[in-house]
Amino acid sequence: MDKDLEPPHYKILNKAREMEREGKPVIHMEIGDPELSTDKRIIDAMYEAALKGYTHYGSAQGIPQIRIAISNYMSEKLNIEFTQDDICIVPGSKSAIYITLKTLGNNRERNRVVVLEPTWGIYYSFIKDLGYEALPIRLSMDNRWIPTKEDISKIEDSDFIVVINPSNPTGVVFSKEAVERIVEKALDNDSIIIADEIYFDLIYTSREFYSFFHTQYEKLVGLYSFSKTYAMTGFRLGWVLSKNKEFIRKITKGYQLLLTNVPEFIQFAGVRALELREIIDRNREVYRKRTRILSEGLKELGFKFIEPEAGFYIFTKVPEGFRDSIEFADKLLSQSYVAVAPGTAFGDYPGFVRFTTALKEETLRAALERIKDLLGK
Amino acid sequence: MDKDLEPPHYKILNKAREMEREGKPVIHMEIGDPELSTDKRIIDAMYEAALKGYTHYGSAQGIPQIRIAISNYMSEKLNIEFTQDDICIVPGSKSAIYITLKTLGNNRERNRVVVLEPTWGIYYSFIKDLGYEALPIRLSMDNRWIPTKEDISKIEDSDFIVVINPSNPTGVVFSKEAVERIVEKALDNDSIIIADEIYFDLIYTSREFYSFFHTQYEKLVGLYSFSKTYAMTGFRLGWVLSKNKEFIRKITKGYQLLLTNVPEFIQFAGVRALELREIIDRNREVYRKRTRILSEGLKELGFKFIEPEAGFYIFTKVPEGFRDSIEFADKLLSQSYVAVAPGTAFGDYPGFVRFTTALKEETLRAALERIKDLLGK
Repeated sequence: MDKDLEPPHYKILNKAREMEREGKPVIHMEIGDPELSTDKRIIDAMYEAALKGYTHYGSAQGIPQIRIAISNYMSEKLNIEFTQDDICIVPGSKSAIYITLKTLGNNRERNRVVVLEPTWGIYYSFIKDLGYEALPIRLSMDNRWIPTKEDISKIEDSDFIVVINPSNPTGVVFSKEAVERIVEKALDNDSIIIADEIYFDLIYTSREFYSFFHTQYEKLVGLYSFSKTYAMTGFRLGWVLSKNKEFIRKITKGYQLLLTNVPEFIQFAGVRALELREIIDRNREVYRKRTRILSEGLKELGFKFIEPEAGFYIFTKVPEGFRDSIEFADKLLSQSYVAVAPGTAFGDYPGFVRFTTALKEETLRAALERIKDLLGK
Repeated sequence: MDKDLEPPHYKILNKAREMEREGKPVIHMEIGDPELSTDKRIIDAMYEAALKGYTHYGSAQGIPQIRIAISNYMSEKLNIEFTQDDICIVPGSKSAIYITLKTLGNNRERNRVVVLEPTWGIYYSFIKDLGYEALPIRLSMDNRWIPTKEDISKIEDSDFIVVINPSNPTGVVFSKEAVERIVEKALDNDSIIIADEIYFDLIYTSREFYSFFHTQYEKLVGLYSFSKTYAMTGFRLGWVLSKNKEFIRKITKGYQLLLTNVPEFIQFAGVRALELREIIDRNREVYRKRTRILSEGLKELGFKFIEPEAGFYIFTKVPEGFRDSIEFADKLLSQSYVAVAPGTAFGDYPGFVRFTTALKEETLRAALERIKDLLGK
């Protein structure tokens, strides 16, 4: 993997870590790592499982206990029946994306991947790494980041369509119509949809979530994670969901070859988490409040963006007076020790940056003060 | 990744797991998972770290604490000075092999990889998966599995040379001369050596271990793990060692893209483990005894093999009366519920099978009884 495969915010992250080692008081707004603790009961469950001897190699697909718990959770949330066979446990969505693209690619030389952007830059990294071809569809803030009929009409014949909904970085939730139109296009072209729905359980508005699974499209892989809802980023625990048995089989084989399995004691942490669903409600409320604080603060400083409906990011235009997002991000980090992700990390958005809002109120206020100073306001 | 990328013992493993689910009393001698518990103090350290809040994203290279502990351990064991910069923490050696081959491959279309076989089959899986070309050097039991001068003279110009020493599956430890001759060849051809030295601290004989690092060869990557020495297979924790800064940098980047990082609380388990080195001595003694029990039992049943000097495998000729190792392994599993790895999992060895010896004495004795029955002795 070449250096240039890195999404640009990794450069910021690595620089920020270096500055931290030098003793600089860096505020990390470039990665989606909530400033929030994992519930002790979840950690206890992991410990107990390890003591019970779940310290051996295991099945690549995951222990039945967690797959059953997840299938119940998803069945309940989406009102669609899932079983443990529809699930493969994964150590984070990065490897899930890589292994899904890799194992479900056809044998044509160059798989074509439609990407609705702005998107999480890692998709482009893997598309490039695998020698696939990216076909970006560039959404616009003018349409509140929702794919319009015209945007969707631009979707070409492809092997994959990659969609993040609720969106990272914009935090908008796609309309039912948009989801259905994308699926129609997929059906026309026999494309596999990778629906990254990581933030589906962190929606703050009354808007109902319309999952790609609601369309009953058959060539569909969904990506989900414990990281954000349960503040468990460091556990590296998520799942791939698909009713397509062949997809789950291939993805599982990919994991068995590459990683053997996710530690079983970590999977038991996930089982316990799903018994404690009130944590999701609690954390959602925390994230909602924090997002509002940053949103109000940024608006006061003149930033222009669409109010996020979900997740914990704000994707905003770079303030006037900066050439582009790289310049703004660089200055903000080197002069004010605030790390943000430049818009080019999410596609062709040199005029935007993404802020993570999942930080403590005092951290957010400190960041806002520093930004204010940088802007000379 | 195609189905045919799987090493043959995965088919056995998956079939064995299926039989287990059907209630069959399977004995697992096909994988290297010790029937031994992880020391509670190591589990406690993981728990404490998680409680302290090491539940967030971290550096892909690993926390400094574990890299310092490992560098001290390796410096001491090999009497060579290492620093934390020479180490990248990995979730098991499979991904380490994959990422090493992938990120250190040159930009030529087809990297050539010399493989001294018998070898761990996963090497061939990844070579094939990456579109590289394998150049096997087939070692022989007649030479006690040690590469001879003639074997080494067959090493062609290549991008990589892959060596497992102490050997998996044979358990022999290469002579200093063999190691030095391999390095000479690597030097001639400017090849990167991947030295899989996972079992270096589980040597039972008085023979001194001569690491590839003792040669001071510059294009060298070593692979090591907590899995076997500490009975921590399910933690997915190991490390890549190299004095080549560029190698470590590239491998770290590969991990950052694909997996973000190994859970930090798991890394703290590793830190604690390295404070408790007496566990290695204790486990080594357990493995030595178990290996001797199986070795004596198999010899009594007429099996022909070289006595292992390290690790916990016995690589033996298939007994007379069976067409090949696949037939023997299939019959042994389906009729006697004993799973073993066929020789084809390790290269061109259809006449051999690998037994894992790291099982409890009672399990080994039960397995020996079942094998005796199958052979009609």
